[in-house]
Amino acid sequence: MKRVTILVAALLLLCASATAAEPRHDIHFPDIPGCHTLKCDFHTHTVFSDGNVWPTVRIDEAWREGLDAIALTDHIEYQPHREDVPTNHSRPCELAAGRARELGILLIRGAEITRDTPPGHHNAIFLDDIDRLAKEDFFAVFDTAQKQGAFVFWNHPGWQGLEAGKWGEAQQTLLDKKQLHGIEICNGDSYYEYAHQLALDKGLTLVGNSDIHDPSPELQPTPEHHRTLTLVFARERNLESLHDALRAGRTAVWQKNRLIGNENELSAMFSACVRVNPPHHRSGNRMWVAIDNRGELEIELERIDETVRPARFVLAPLATTLVRFEASPELRAQGLPYRTANFLTGPAKPLNVKLVIPGD
Amino acid sequence: MKRVTILVAALLLLCASATAAEPRHDIHFPDIPGCHTLKCDFHTHTVFSDGNVWPTVRIDEAWREGLDAIALTDHIEYQPHREDVPTNHSRPCELAAGRARELGILLIRGAEITRDTPPGHHNAIFLDDIDRLAKEDFFAVFDTAQKQGAFVFWNHPGWQGLEAGKWGEAQQTLLDKKQLHGIEICNGDSYYEYAHQLALDKGLTLVGNSDIHDPSPELQPTPEHHRTLTLVFARERNLESLHDALRAGRTAVWQKNRLIGNENELSAMFSACVRVNPPHHRSGNRMWVAIDNRGELEIELERIDETVRPARFVLAPLATTLVRFEASPELRAQGLPYRTANFLTGPAKPLNVKLVIPGD
Amino acid sequence: MKRVTILVAALLLLCASATAAEPRHDIHFPDIPGCHTLKCDFHTHTVFSDGNVWPTVRIDEAWREGLDAIALTDHIEYQPHREDVPTNHSRPCELAAGRARELGILLIRGAEITRDTPPGHHNAIFLDDIDRLAKEDFFAVFDTAQKQGAFVFWNHPGWQGLEAGKWGEAQQTLLDKKQLHGIEICNGDSYYEYAHQLALDKGLTLVGNSDIHDPSPELQPTPEHHRTLTLVFARERNLESLHDALRAGRTAVWQKNRLIGNENELSAMFSACVRVNPPHHRSGNRMWVAIDNRGELEIELERIDETVRPARFVLAPLATTLVRFEASPELRAQGLPYRTANFLTGPAKPLNVKLVIPGD
Amino acid sequence: MKRVTILVAALLLLCASATAAEPRHDIHFPDIPGCHTLKCDFHTHTVFSDGNVWPTVRIDEAWREGLDAIALTDHIEYQPHREDVPTNHSRPCELAAGRARELGILLIRGAEITRDTPPGHHNAIFLDDIDRLAKEDFFAVFDTAQKQGAFVFWNHPGWQGLEAGKWGEAQQTLLDKKQLHGIEICNGDSYYEYAHQLALDKGLTLVGNSDIHDPSPELQPTPEHHRTLTLVFARERNLESLHDALRAGRTAVWQKNRLIGNENELSAMFSACVRVNPPHHRSGNRMWVAIDNRGELEIELERIDETVRPARFVLAPLATTLVRFEASPELRAQGLPYRTANFLTGPAKPLNVKLVIPGD
Repeated sequence: MKRVTILVAALLLLCASATAAEPRHDIHFPDIPGCHTLKCDFHTHTVFSDGNVWPTVRIDEAWREGLDAIALTDHIEYQPHREDVPTNHSRPCELAAGRARELGILLIRGAEITRDTPPGHHNAIFLDDIDRLAKEDFFAVFDTAQKQGAFVFWNHPGWQGLEAGKWGEAQQTLLDKKQLHGIEICNGDSYYEYAHQLALDKGLTLVGNSDIHDPSPELQPTPEHHRTLTLVFARERNLESLHDALRAGRTAVWQKNRLIGNENELSAMFSACVRVNPPHHRSGNRMWVAIDNRGELEIELERIDETVRPARFVLAPLATTLVRFEASPELRAQGLPYRTANFLTGPAKPLNVKLVIPGD
Repeated sequence: MKRVTILVAALLLLCASATAAEPRHDIHFPDIPGCHTLKCDFHTHTVFSDGNVWPTVRIDEAWREGLDAIALTDHIEYQPHREDVPTNHSRPCELAAGRARELGILLIRGAEITRDTPPGHHNAIFLDDIDRLAKEDFFAVFDTAQKQGAFVFWNHPGWQGLEAGKWGEAQQTLLDKKQLHGIEICNGDSYYEYAHQLALDKGLTLVGNSDIHDPSPELQPTPEHHRTLTLVFARERNLESLHDALRAGRTAVWQKNRLIGNENELSAMFSACVRVNPPHHRSGNRMWVAIDNRGELEIELERIDETVRPARFVLAPLATTLVRFEASPELRAQGLPYRTANFLTGPAKPLNVKLVIPGD
Repeated sequence: MKRVTILVAALLLLCASATAAEPRHDIHFPDIPGCHTLKCDFHTHTVFSDGNVWPTVRIDEAWREGLDAIALTDHIEYQPHREDVPTNHSRPCELAAGRARELGILLIRGAEITRDTPPGHHNAIFLDDIDRLAKEDFFAVFDTAQKQGAFVFWNHPGWQGLEAGKWGEAQQTLLDKKQLHGIEICNGDSYYEYAHQLALDKGLTLVGNSDIHDPSPELQPTPEHHRTLTLVFARERNLESLHDALRAGRTAVWQKNRLIGNENELSAMFSACVRVNPPHHRSGNRMWVAIDNRGELEIELERIDETVRPARFVLAPLATTLVRFEASPELRAQGLPYRTANFLTGPAKPLNVKLVIPGD
Repeated sequence: MKRVTILVAALLLLCASATAAEPRHDIHFPDIPGCHTLKCDFHTHTVFSDGNVWPTVRIDEAWREGLDAIALTDHIEYQPHREDVPTNHSRPCELAAGRARELGILLIRGAEITRDTPPGHHNAIFLDDIDRLAKEDFFAVFDTAQKQGAFVFWNHPGWQGLEAGKWGEAQQTLLDKKQLHGIEICNGDSYYEYAHQLALDKGLTLVGNSDIHDPSPELQPTPEHHRTLTLVFARERNLESLHDALRAGRTAVWQKNRLIGNENELSAMFSACVRVNPPHHRSGNRMWVAIDNRGELEIELERIDETVRPARFVLAPLATTLVRFEASPELRAQGLPYRTANFLTGPAKPLNVKLVIPGD
């Protein structure tokens, strides 16, 4: 109808503001040697399953919050809004694609394969055709996902308690068939320590996501309160590289005030975040040293060697901290030995670092 | 299917947190003598027309942001999501009703009657049955709204420019038929000064709303950045009183750092917000006086009488400001004469106030 | 010299701004029945001992941060700035008095009696003449303070470690002579649990202070980060009533996210802060209840009775929280039994409360 | 006395925290080609004249707020605290030097030569011996400053009104004798537009300072509220280079939401702050372009050519903004012509820029 056409034109005009979106604020985790550090959320919902926002909102949020990539992963089997929004598995990505292109967000087609626990919920991402996964038979679903080249991870293993979330036959079968590639060790504010150990034991990629259903709050993130994300260390900033890095296990999970990952990537990230400057001043074995922290973590360092001072210090995020070190020339030559639980290489296993003071 | 039933149970369990919602933060505009000051938004959208959130989100936002009442007013004629969310005018309120009851939010069934400009868009609120308004004939729609006892206001008169937004035949006809009761002098960050004058000339109730389509940002509101609202001065905190107050024109619009309304209510609100305390100290005609501002406005006061000091001062919101007054005993006896553009009784017409210093 | 006189006039003119101070922000702890809740800091320093600000700055800070009373308590014996600021014990209060009068801050003349540990440091406040306390003999100093009617408390008993801070002969002697009346159980971010027990055992008034040396940061206070203060429950807002209340032990210490005090005052303060509203909605034994928290604490409540739900909930400060209770009619009739560690009546001893739901 | 020695030791121990200062937050103005961008305040006071803090506080503030250099410039002739802090012109820098060395702050010895207006106040910085400037004869003071190699600027020319602040005989004489090198076009929140023109006419270096007397508020700076500073574009980060750059006029003043300077440096700073990225998406003459703003300014751009879209847009500070451009291929080839009043090359004279879209 002509009237509606005019209406649409008028309403579009209303939206044609000079700038097409809210400002985007970087998440400050620098690149590491050889890799881009992509900030990703692989578990989000929209009104097409049990989420409460239109798919484009997830793209706007991703832009605003500094994400590089996002997967829309509506439940295949759980559709509480079906009466008002008839099931249509391909629509969330179709609707969001234009906005993602304009904003430069890498958009990943995904789905949540939803079963009672056990075996629980699993996300398949990088899918071609979600409709084909809408099957009764559990293992047939994963066969299909595999044919589409999907990356599959087990979601929130502990959300119904430790017993329910144990590694089960289903997971072992999927692993044996190379149909399970990752595990969500963090989901929102929950961290499943035993799932972290499982990941190490079974060789699964570490994943952490928001599992967001409501609109994302536009609050200024702090070290303790922010969206839980997966950092992916990818050769390039594109979907193919991202997928490759996931397969290769090059990830770290950012949850609360910590990064959880493998020693290699965490060491590289620590070095990329923390710059120790030449001392401002010295007096005997004492040195006044400014240390830059270019990352989002409030990093707490504890000495390993009892002869070093201070015993403990904290590096505020995105700031420079003055530390008054005291250490023997021998220790300074090797690097001052500290450990930091903000970088976790295994359950309760802090990263060890050596701080070299330049020009010493 | 049994499986889905169990799933639903499990997912509901997940949501059964100890506290059922985010904290609610008051909007600080005190009650005035004889009336509750209800904070209301009469113009909001959901996925059921061109909004981007599920209806319950509007209730959660209203709770969190300290609103008392909210109208869901999806477009009747403009349904860009129709392909995915088939038209169903009564659903937004049906879906939101339970959440509104739990959170104690007054929920109003409304609709936006959407035509090209002129005559433009109008909201009808307090409707019984929106389906009956889905008619081709413009005036027939308003006849129906009138039969349902709706309160009707003209939306954003200026959003397509001054010429397009002029008072037209349509509006005059509706007014003559007592089918037009209010006018949106503020819509989001826009204030239509000429519409304000129209309201005064035609005896229309002043209304200001967000016209929100996206999720509401959870940012800490400031005097300059907050949701545009209508304050309604109602005898009781219920829908009937609210409707009565709207009919009686007992409203004020809170937009940016100002309240726009009638002199009666604005004077009462100024007195409710601003408390002048007995002087801490005196010296001749000088007095050191602490003034409490219990409201959300950053109030700027300018002297009317040239002999008073200071010439100008500012009362920070929700804070106490120390002012060093200097005035003759005669003026102090009458009250110190100031004006404030933060309280607007007409276009460019600031409220005049007299500050009486107690115990003087 | 004339020139300087003119200069002074000109510079004073520069300062004669319309408003004579930064805005003051209330500390939200309501009055309790029969008493004003005065927010007090009894331990602060200026350039006249080892502090880094001019005495008037302490008054400006007190105003801005919502304090009612402040004591300037420069060290008598420790004067590291003496070379530049010759010792003059009476000057800090002389210099600050005018500003305190203008801003309505209750200013208390005090001093820190500074000895090695043991016996450590003690503050004497409400002094007439500090010079008379500048004596070599430890006990003679306290005799003089007593003659002047001072209120005396032991400062930061644990700042040099537990051993050094033990109750000693000196303290016992002072107590026996009625020359020791209070004890600083909190000093800045430190809480001395054993000193809290000492206070209960010896009948000493609980005191908590900032012991501030540098300028006070103008940051927005949060439940975890704020100036440590003593709340004094005084009949009137004047120095005499404040002194009486200190003698009578009617205080509570606000440090981090807790109030530490006697059960009487803490119960009254809990009731003044927490208002339980009539339920928005009921369904069987379930009730949706909005609870207002008008205080600065983020209050965590834990059930005492296993049959009540929720097991635990949190009331955000200066906000309203919706809680979904579930309890038998019998329990509801008695009040729902919870405990809260944010109100501490002894070391590790949380306050028990009963929540009565109105109109139930 | 032995006792005091021990006391001092104990109190010093108390201060020996692991980290020796608050975190430092960068001021984000990047370096420009060939120069470091040093953030400097050349006008501050301490208790040694009419300021309210101990000299070390100015160093702590400078560190915390991301400054590179600071001058202590107490009044020579105006000493309102003299009764308590006897005049000693060299002490502020002596007292602050150790802290400056530890924190790596460039500390400049300065003084404010204080006379009635006219001729008003002048700062001399980089002095060897302030005592020698304490003379009755106005011009003799500047002769002495010149002998010491000082950089001299006229302070806040307009603070006593336009008439009083006019360029006078005194200033002309000093200029002729090469004893006046700069002019404070901004002092705190004041900007003297005519002084800006004077600077251009007379070839004076642009200077802007805080003239701070009270403690610096520790608030998070915003584009509109921050400490007024001089950016100095120096070859190296040391006092000599800084002095050279001042002599050469390589400065810009950061006040409120603008940088005021010469076209050369402002152009370089604009380019250093604003990075235009390759378009995310194109459609005909439309391009969706992400623009990074790495600086502290909220930059507003207005088109010069009427055929470009948008007519106006805003780049949020330290964020990325998406802009939807529309321009002919010819214009795109030349760079899109915009102007920005946030970069001011003369009174009311905005900087013109050309935005080149890479890969276009």
